[in-house]
Amino acid sequence: MHRTHTCGELRITDINTTVTLSGWLQKSRDLGGMTFIDLRDRYGITQLAFNMETNAALCEQARKCGREFVLKVTGKVIERSSKNLNISTGEIEIEVTEFEILNESQTPPFTIEDNTDGGDDIRMKYRYLDIRRKPVRDNLLLRHKMSQQTRVYLDAQEFTEVETPVLIKSTPEGARDFVVPSRMNQGQFYALPQSPQTFKQLLMVAGMDRYYQIVKCFRDEDLRADRQPEFTQIDCEMSFVEQEDILNMFEGLVKHLFKNVKGINIDSLQRMTFADAAKYYGSDKPDTRFDMKFVELKSPDVETLHATSLLPSGFPVFDNAELVVGICAKGCAEYTRKQLDELTEFVKRPQIGATGLVYARVNADGSVKSSVDKFYDEATLKQWATAMNAAPGDLILIMAGQTDKTRKALCELRLEMGTRMGLRNPDVYSCLWVLDFPLLEFNEEENRWFAMHHPFTSPKPEDIALMNEGKFGQVRANAYDMVVNGVEVGGGSIRIFDKTLQAKMFDVLGFTKDEAQAQFGFLMNAFEYGAPPHGGIAFGFDRLCSLFGGENSIRDFIAFPKNNSGRDVMIDAPSEIDNKQLKELGIDVKK
Amino acid sequence: MHRTHTCGELRITDINTTVTLSGWLQKSRDLGGMTFIDLRDRYGITQLAFNMETNAALCEQARKCGREFVLKVTGKVIERSSKNLNISTGEIEIEVTEFEILNESQTPPFTIEDNTDGGDDIRMKYRYLDIRRKPVRDNLLLRHKMSQQTRVYLDAQEFTEVETPVLIKSTPEGARDFVVPSRMNQGQFYALPQSPQTFKQLLMVAGMDRYYQIVKCFRDEDLRADRQPEFTQIDCEMSFVEQEDILNMFEGLVKHLFKNVKGINIDSLQRMTFADAAKYYGSDKPDTRFDMKFVELKSPDVETLHATSLLPSGFPVFDNAELVVGICAKGCAEYTRKQLDELTEFVKRPQIGATGLVYARVNADGSVKSSVDKFYDEATLKQWATAMNAAPGDLILIMAGQTDKTRKALCELRLEMGTRMGLRNPDVYSCLWVLDFPLLEFNEEENRWFAMHHPFTSPKPEDIALMNEGKFGQVRANAYDMVVNGVEVGGGSIRIFDKTLQAKMFDVLGFTKDEAQAQFGFLMNAFEYGAPPHGGIAFGFDRLCSLFGGENSIRDFIAFPKNNSGRDVMIDAPSEIDNKQLKELGIDVKK
Repeated sequence: MHRTHTCGELRITDINTTVTLSGWLQKSRDLGGMTFIDLRDRYGITQLAFNMETNAALCEQARKCGREFVLKVTGKVIERSSKNLNISTGEIEIEVTEFEILNESQTPPFTIEDNTDGGDDIRMKYRYLDIRRKPVRDNLLLRHKMSQQTRVYLDAQEFTEVETPVLIKSTPEGARDFVVPSRMNQGQFYALPQSPQTFKQLLMVAGMDRYYQIVKCFRDEDLRADRQPEFTQIDCEMSFVEQEDILNMFEGLVKHLFKNVKGINIDSLQRMTFADAAKYYGSDKPDTRFDMKFVELKSPDVETLHATSLLPSGFPVFDNAELVVGICAKGCAEYTRKQLDELTEFVKRPQIGATGLVYARVNADGSVKSSVDKFYDEATLKQWATAMNAAPGDLILIMAGQTDKTRKALCELRLEMGTRMGLRNPDVYSCLWVLDFPLLEFNEEENRWFAMHHPFTSPKPEDIALMNEGKFGQVRANAYDMVVNGVEVGGGSIRIFDKTLQAKMFDVLGFTKDEAQAQFGFLMNAFEYGAPPHGGIAFGFDRLCSLFGGENSIRDFIAFPKNNSGRDVMIDAPSEIDNKQLKELGIDVKK
Repeated sequence: MHRTHTCGELRITDINTTVTLSGWLQKSRDLGGMTFIDLRDRYGITQLAFNMETNAALCEQARKCGREFVLKVTGKVIERSSKNLNISTGEIEIEVTEFEILNESQTPPFTIEDNTDGGDDIRMKYRYLDIRRKPVRDNLLLRHKMSQQTRVYLDAQEFTEVETPVLIKSTPEGARDFVVPSRMNQGQFYALPQSPQTFKQLLMVAGMDRYYQIVKCFRDEDLRADRQPEFTQIDCEMSFVEQEDILNMFEGLVKHLFKNVKGINIDSLQRMTFADAAKYYGSDKPDTRFDMKFVELKSPDVETLHATSLLPSGFPVFDNAELVVGICAKGCAEYTRKQLDELTEFVKRPQIGATGLVYARVNADGSVKSSVDKFYDEATLKQWATAMNAAPGDLILIMAGQTDKTRKALCELRLEMGTRMGLRNPDVYSCLWVLDFPLLEFNEEENRWFAMHHPFTSPKPEDIALMNEGKFGQVRANAYDMVVNGVEVGGGSIRIFDKTLQAKMFDVLGFTKDEAQAQFGFLMNAFEYGAPPHGGIAFGFDRLCSLFGGENSIRDFIAFPKNNSGRDVMIDAPSEIDNKQLKELGIDVKK
């Protein structure tokens, strides 16, 4: 062992001990008579002292070392004259008596400091240097702790970790598969799993009762900013359960993680239906760290018909809109014209696509001033303020148009206001179950129904009649998402375990019997032999880690991520392969 | 929840409790007045009692259920009149008051019993039914416990689990890669990792200090009986260590696993050099559960030159042999002619390829009778017996020929004798480190040197001079294998961390500078920036599990294994894919 201690563990109580440390040269200071080196490893930083008077040769040697040299030193632990109480080893230093350069280093292409001068691209190329930086290393250590604690909880709940295969079968349903040509079965391909969905269901049929796996999954999608072609799931499945059992079990997991990783006690999770999430937040993943719920002034819903009295006709935009809906930004009545223009610009950006924004200020004296004053009298505006629960000093923001589009746009505005008002603190966590998702959604382009979750999700028993009547859009699923701070971190469902219902589902999705048999025959066949009621959930582990780390990008929580073109720029993959290899596989590359 | 208890937890102390259980119908007995059903889940079996007198309708319903029906019952726990003390729930039964068929089952294609009537092929096709059988389920539960305990040990030793990428870069060195065509970078391919070797080394350069991962690896090899295209490793790496540190750390892991999974205390591991393993066992993975070491009567080694007196010339086979070597089978002098013929046939099988076998019996009176009596006088034969430490009642078995071939053949014979003599009890464990492997081995076919372990393995410092002199065959590596009961369960090495030595190594392996740069440039480049001394090990996790389970086949310890053609016969993969998919990937399949 090239050390007796790490660079993070020596304390004032170790004084006079002779120790050996190894690590990287973080910083070197030549003060003439003395040279000090900060030696760094994963565990911390320890100061080394070299004295020109007592050992000039050693001191000279130390002075020649550059940043990131790998050093091994032996010496005595002594008390520092000027202590640094910001670091755990800051009361001591090492009076070095032996010194060895284990390895030299070129000057790194960026500084290995908490705040580096390196841009994204260079840090990705030299990822092994970027990981030396504390913030990146801490992210990987957090991820480790997250997986440890996930296992602690699930193991205690009798879940068995079972590895499912990576080389599986391609299925056209869902996202695009990565495929692997088979050399031994030429012309045939394996696929990499988008999730172990069918295998975990088979494990339930197999009687394994409670399964989990922290597992790599793969999707060959065009990568958006924060997607990776390979990603990690906490994948779980349970037998003999109903939805409520799953919700309780995994509420428990999330509470356990917050408590044991972050030291935070989380209350029981809020629950919200998909319909309410849409109505009050314009999203199936509302950020519930702050309230600012939508209030509808006009809506196609029966329930809000009474609200029509709020909107006497006159303003054509509102008159022609399916939905008129607003939020109340507490204490923002003082927003300047410029700030209000910024908000209007914000909602008009092509990503959001709204045509405009109406505002109304509730002044200190209770009067209301709005951008649509000429269409509505003050009595009406005051009614709005009442409906919106707006007090003097508040700002009302209103949008109008087609229901789904308007809700989506107002959702973005609500989040923007939350950010501006400092209501989205990354150290505050609000967790939520979204329930009662629709089972099916219609795809106009392909002119057919798709499973909103996946084809194995069960309808609510009370909605099966609607399914048989062909009212597919009204059928609710036994499906649930867990949302934390407006981010979907997990989702799952109670599965169909009845072969007749599963066949019906494939039929609705437009599979012929032969297609269903060819692609999912093994699962349908398994259902012939006593499938138990079962359900499960999968958490996006990269996303969950980034959330716990208080950052937005999942990439920072993956040791060796790929860029937006799916390339690993460090190892330069993908790359061309030998013709010999192609020949063995029986495939040609098109020129 | 469709149960209040599992089928494995009710005891005599639960009597009079009302419970709900769910599970599979294992067995049903209709005794006229009573019907008994054994209800099974992952946790055990509980007897259900239906009484024709008290509830005829329920009893009739129960009688209609076949094997593997999924049932949910509610009833009172009562004491059994005839107890079954072989099972943990054997003192009680459930007097059923409510009964529901959750799902029906066709008659399974084989019996779901510890000993089934199903052959290998049908059990693989219906793997989800095979896993319902206790022996298979127990294997998967053992595997779970193994991974749990591996993590407990490594976590406590400050190892961090880091996930390395699955979509990496193909390298021609080593076994054949599985490749994945890239859609976004057409004409280019990812490769699936044969091991995370370079990534774990980069993590050491990155300062992660101690890394582990229980990780899937992939090799596109022609599959021998017990190989799988995807397999799992316990992959580990440490910084600032020397060989001794690694040996101690992972000796600790194996002891921890034996203690916590099997309840067995293991002594300190034996250590043996590669040279001694070859000389005394004819193998680099000797089964040390039993002794029966090789004794050389004639050998090219200087050390055994004295032994020539044991072999006066006369018998041409021995006279012309490079090596004459034997083993002593204690107490086997009474072997019949038929048994000895069987042994001769055994070594002559093409897999072993020996030309013959010489035996010598040491009789009760101390006289020695051999199959080569006419070439050697009794005094010589007695000298053999002395050299072999053979006592009256022992059988000496001798083989001769070219050194490596003869050792290999005698190794097989030794194992066969060990089996015949009952010396290879799967419940006895003998663990061993094999050390001082050669760094390089010459491949006659390709007429070049190959790395015996891999190109990143460091030579022993004292042997670097030999390397510089071009005596590649004599250079020993800082490499080590862990062998348990004659099975290699793990192996690793101290790595090269000096860029000059790494470049030299690539040079010896016949890489041009450009080739080395193209394939391993990222690693060589990383070595420019302060690589620490480091080393590691990888354990074959499937193999380790099968060893702990006391079975030979790794397939029994994998939930969904592939067959010898690399096919998953349950899901029928690999399979053909759509032309649309091929087109998107820019590849053609050769007809």
